[in-house]
Amino acid sequence: MVKVGIAGASGYTGLELIRLLVKHPEAQITALTSETYQGQRVADVFPSLAGSIDRDFSSLDPSAAEDCDILFLALPHTTAMNLVPGFLKGNCRVIDLSADFRLKSPQVFETWYSVPHNQRETLSQAVYGLPELHREQIRKARLIANPGCYPTSVILALAPLMTTDWVDLGSIVADSKSGVSGAGRKPSLTTQFAECNEAVSAYGLATHRHTPEIEQEISTLAGREVCITFSPHLMPMTRGLLSTVYINLVRDLTLGELDRYYREIYKNEPFVRILNPGAFANTHYVAHSNYCDIGLQIDVRNRRIILTSAIDNLVKGAAGQAVQNMNLMLGIDETTGLDSPGLFP
Amino acid sequence: MVKVGIAGASGYTGLELIRLLVKHPEAQITALTSETYQGQRVADVFPSLAGSIDRDFSSLDPSAAEDCDILFLALPHTTAMNLVPGFLKGNCRVIDLSADFRLKSPQVFETWYSVPHNQRETLSQAVYGLPELHREQIRKARLIANPGCYPTSVILALAPLMTTDWVDLGSIVADSKSGVSGAGRKPSLTTQFAECNEAVSAYGLATHRHTPEIEQEISTLAGREVCITFSPHLMPMTRGLLSTVYINLVRDLTLGELDRYYREIYKNEPFVRILNPGAFANTHYVAHSNYCDIGLQIDVRNRRIILTSAIDNLVKGAAGQAVQNMNLMLGIDETTGLDSPGLFP
Amino acid sequence: MVKVGIAGASGYTGLELIRLLVKHPEAQITALTSETYQGQRVADVFPSLAGSIDRDFSSLDPSAAEDCDILFLALPHTTAMNLVPGFLKGNCRVIDLSADFRLKSPQVFETWYSVPHNQRETLSQAVYGLPELHREQIRKARLIANPGCYPTSVILALAPLMTTDWVDLGSIVADSKSGVSGAGRKPSLTTQFAECNEAVSAYGLATHRHTPEIEQEISTLAGREVCITFSPHLMPMTRGLLSTVYINLVRDLTLGELDRYYREIYKNEPFVRILNPGAFANTHYVAHSNYCDIGLQIDVRNRRIILTSAIDNLVKGAAGQAVQNMNLMLGIDETTGLDSPGLFP
Amino acid sequence: MVKVGIAGASGYTGLELIRLLVKHPEAQITALTSETYQGQRVADVFPSLAGSIDRDFSSLDPSAAEDCDILFLALPHTTAMNLVPGFLKGNCRVIDLSADFRLKSPQVFETWYSVPHNQRETLSQAVYGLPELHREQIRKARLIANPGCYPTSVILALAPLMTTDWVDLGSIVADSKSGVSGAGRKPSLTTQFAECNEAVSAYGLATHRHTPEIEQEISTLAGREVCITFSPHLMPMTRGLLSTVYINLVRDLTLGELDRYYREIYKNEPFVRILNPGAFANTHYVAHSNYCDIGLQIDVRNRRIILTSAIDNLVKGAAGQAVQNMNLMLGIDETTGLDSPGLFP
Repeated sequence: MVKVGIAGASGYTGLELIRLLVKHPEAQITALTSETYQGQRVADVFPSLAGSIDRDFSSLDPSAAEDCDILFLALPHTTAMNLVPGFLKGNCRVIDLSADFRLKSPQVFETWYSVPHNQRETLSQAVYGLPELHREQIRKARLIANPGCYPTSVILALAPLMTTDWVDLGSIVADSKSGVSGAGRKPSLTTQFAECNEAVSAYGLATHRHTPEIEQEISTLAGREVCITFSPHLMPMTRGLLSTVYINLVRDLTLGELDRYYREIYKNEPFVRILNPGAFANTHYVAHSNYCDIGLQIDVRNRRIILTSAIDNLVKGAAGQAVQNMNLMLGIDETTGLDSPGLFP
Repeated sequence: MVKVGIAGASGYTGLELIRLLVKHPEAQITALTSETYQGQRVADVFPSLAGSIDRDFSSLDPSAAEDCDILFLALPHTTAMNLVPGFLKGNCRVIDLSADFRLKSPQVFETWYSVPHNQRETLSQAVYGLPELHREQIRKARLIANPGCYPTSVILALAPLMTTDWVDLGSIVADSKSGVSGAGRKPSLTTQFAECNEAVSAYGLATHRHTPEIEQEISTLAGREVCITFSPHLMPMTRGLLSTVYINLVRDLTLGELDRYYREIYKNEPFVRILNPGAFANTHYVAHSNYCDIGLQIDVRNRRIILTSAIDNLVKGAAGQAVQNMNLMLGIDETTGLDSPGLFP
Repeated sequence: MVKVGIAGASGYTGLELIRLLVKHPEAQITALTSETYQGQRVADVFPSLAGSIDRDFSSLDPSAAEDCDILFLALPHTTAMNLVPGFLKGNCRVIDLSADFRLKSPQVFETWYSVPHNQRETLSQAVYGLPELHREQIRKARLIANPGCYPTSVILALAPLMTTDWVDLGSIVADSKSGVSGAGRKPSLTTQFAECNEAVSAYGLATHRHTPEIEQEISTLAGREVCITFSPHLMPMTRGLLSTVYINLVRDLTLGELDRYYREIYKNEPFVRILNPGAFANTHYVAHSNYCDIGLQIDVRNRRIILTSAIDNLVKGAAGQAVQNMNLMLGIDETTGLDSPGLFP
Repeated sequence: MVKVGIAGASGYTGLELIRLLVKHPEAQITALTSETYQGQRVADVFPSLAGSIDRDFSSLDPSAAEDCDILFLALPHTTAMNLVPGFLKGNCRVIDLSADFRLKSPQVFETWYSVPHNQRETLSQAVYGLPELHREQIRKARLIANPGCYPTSVILALAPLMTTDWVDLGSIVADSKSGVSGAGRKPSLTTQFAECNEAVSAYGLATHRHTPEIEQEISTLAGREVCITFSPHLMPMTRGLLSTVYINLVRDLTLGELDRYYREIYKNEPFVRILNPGAFANTHYVAHSNYCDIGLQIDVRNRRIILTSAIDNLVKGAAGQAVQNMNLMLGIDETTGLDSPGLFP
């Protein structure tokens, strides 16, 4: 059994990691930290876990990594940054679910996050933890930068097209719709029930921090710099994230060709499902699962591809992907502990 | 008092018309038809209206228009088509909330609705009932084709740009998100609570029938044929419709310039609210009201305008706009009976 | 025009008061206070009100009442207590929506609210503002203690039975279900969307502070002390409150007799609707309205009456009832500004 | 591997059985019937299951049981009744999720279901499948009548008290709140999203068919006939069922005593969790799990016990309990395939 710890275990991402790891056949939870709930029983804070785990939350201290083979960090952005080098000193490997090590360029990080990146050496070792793109590097990594939820859905939708010459790379628009759990568990006015129920709204248009993360990955695939318009929206539901992605064709292409191409690209991916032609992605079908469903359409009149990509923001968009990365790092079956179907209804 | 009738009064659009008209100071409801509920008391079918109306639903017959000054038709598509010429024979004026008289071209109608338009003469008299574009014609019209909900939100967002030379008219993408009431009151699997709760999904991508309606109006404004990609999505909420509209700039433009321009264009419009720069539209703030809120943003990195446009699909997207049209036809204040603020929370 | 002020105008109750009063034909808002938003435009804080009001929020100061004929207090419990005597010194009348003046007995107040009541003289002048019970006193009152949302629904359901000898007064159970807006606008973990969506839960069983308020009013009607079990529950919806109330019969009674009796009792009440026999109350039909719908049933096998009582917690349960009280105090039609039907769907 | 079939596999209960059984380590699905979808791939009908199952729906025929060790029936009430005797002729054992074999008395069945029970001999062999009460009989049974969702929550809450002399058995009121999925997947107006969203309503008060089922089981425990008032309510959520149960004490009892007693009674039950004193049940914490959470409270002023009992209506209230019964019948660990924690948020 591998010993795993979760730092910041009382947020929604941390909680989802607990849920997945308590049933994981190869992992044993040895540490759960929470500043808010230190000293309290996990099952008292989260009654959903009663019967599944019998531990207390502890405070995060620098030695947290000593007793772990794998340490998951579900901490606020910029908190993880300065802790990771210390955690990596021993034998522990780290999967960081914050944004701190996702962007390869410290300059790009500073531009979008408004603070300098002061752990550049560690940054250079981090692997962007999207298994569909970086599986081999993930296996050998000591530090994984687990992708954001929006980037996971958008990159998986776009990746196959980035290596073709079928599309206009300057025309990409990603219009994403996320459930409220993506905003985290810290109480705020904007995530109060009465504020966001019966409400669909846009936020962070053209300025959201997940933009450079998407651009970094698709630019690498395309072999040149690609800029996109990324538009997040808040939906009145707890979980689920749907991205509708638009990109102009520069040649004629049939839906059948597109469908065959995507199926070929993703044929060995256990968690990517290409929908039947004519079907569009629906967050309901991936709820609580690690799947990413991708739907394909061509707007023939406008010579434009329309991709729909649905994930559960807390699973494939966060904790599930982190466990998938752990499985790869441990050399075990990538789907271990992650084989739940989507929960519908 | 003007005598008004509603044919098809037991669907959500019909019900919303009743709600608005029972409190309208200049209108008196003289007929409410419903094939499903004929002979039943309105307040027994809709207990929300108990105390507000004391009438029965009747069956629709060809003489329905005889006792009305204004007849609202909230009937299924293609049902209205053949009834309207008869209704117009007397003095009654008709506001048709179906799609049957919205498209000026019978060929375009047949292409998108898969049936021929067999009332071409009547069609030629119909006025597209978007007051912000066709106010003067509406005042004099005998037949109003009340706009669809999606077109209302998209056209109001795009209209000001159509008469400029700032944008690439071939680059328009409208990504729209609608509440479930837009699908009507007829029971179906896709609108069952357990199917669409906690679900965000796309449907009708590149094929939805509201596309030609949008294109007709913005092409007229632009003075040339404009094609758009229109993508409807279903949201887990009852009411509200948000359109996020993308269009490429062909010159530099600041957000301040854009804001001033939109405010100038809409300065006399009682139901269009331009949001503060930096604010994006939210369906919650227009709920149950006749407002259309428009938010403006420029994606400078990509030289692209992003418009957000929110309405209540049953009010400004249907019944409220129909009453606004009625007010214009009657020569009374356009806001009569429609001055409710958005209902938040 | 009567000059009205609202202290604490940026909570949900205050906001609902604004919504109702901006359209009230006899009232003119002259002051809106909010410590959180002082100096900000109301429509910037609540974009739903743009176009309906053009004012700023101000800070609450002791002279707030000087320029008002009626002052509504939507302040936290125990804050209102010490402010009211000062407000009453001039000609202003006060409608307090907190619990501070609802309980006639300072001892009972202290027992349930854990603080002493230190304005006993003012307390003795307060009138409990449930028009269906205390209409004549309300007309003449200078200080109204506006009822709580739960008590409004439970008292209106039970009141007619309290003056009969049909029931066992020791057997009353009120099981109430409320939407989340009843918990107020202050961010908290329990009212976060992701916590209370898809969740039905009980809270405050046998200990909720609305219990003595209900008992006070029904005991007065019964002419003897009546104790009840009151159980509040939190529902995954924004607005609406349903109480299901159980009381044992001590004689045989038919549903027809019960129905006729309730209709007789409430025949002149503009905001109480007795549902058809066999119909049960549904919060959806009273949404955004000032109605209280009451459904009647008899469990013949158990000789038990089951009452269902639905209100909108922010309207008849708070702001709407406060305006109803204001109308009575002003000697104008009780329904002025409150005649909206329930908003369905 | 045990061969299992599901008749009526395309309703919500059938779908939930598929979800649980595809991951069950001891079961192999060999037949899935659906009249609506026969001949279609399961994953085309339910995209959530893509990647988890590769089968078609078939039509139900009398030989359905021949190739199964265990046959689950998720058919409409009264359909199962006449099919079961045939299915039992071979070696197959049957778990019927309808109400047809739950009531021991054919007379009681006829009274509440309005049709005669015409399979009395088979009825006499059926075991009521609530493991907490009938575990030993279930192990040996050939026909299980799987309990209703409401009865499961109410019986588990009340059972411990039925064998004491602490309570007044004539005073029981069960006020239950269910998510919409409990009404099944067949489209109907009452379960349309726009009808039941933002709506809490009562239905079937004093007449619901689950009443005699509850009474049968608690009467058996009490050793005398017990009648209850049972009140179901519909909640705006997909899954989850909370019952709040009231019963008068006939002696003094502390919450501590009650807590110790319930913990003792349920100490070996893998799926019953007694909440900490002062905590009340919340459907969110049992979502998608087989747990029943029970909260305890004493209303001292009224000498009344208040129990709260939460389950997932489709799991412990239907499919999960059926799998639990299957595990018992197979002699394997009762929790096999059912050990998921509650899914929160």
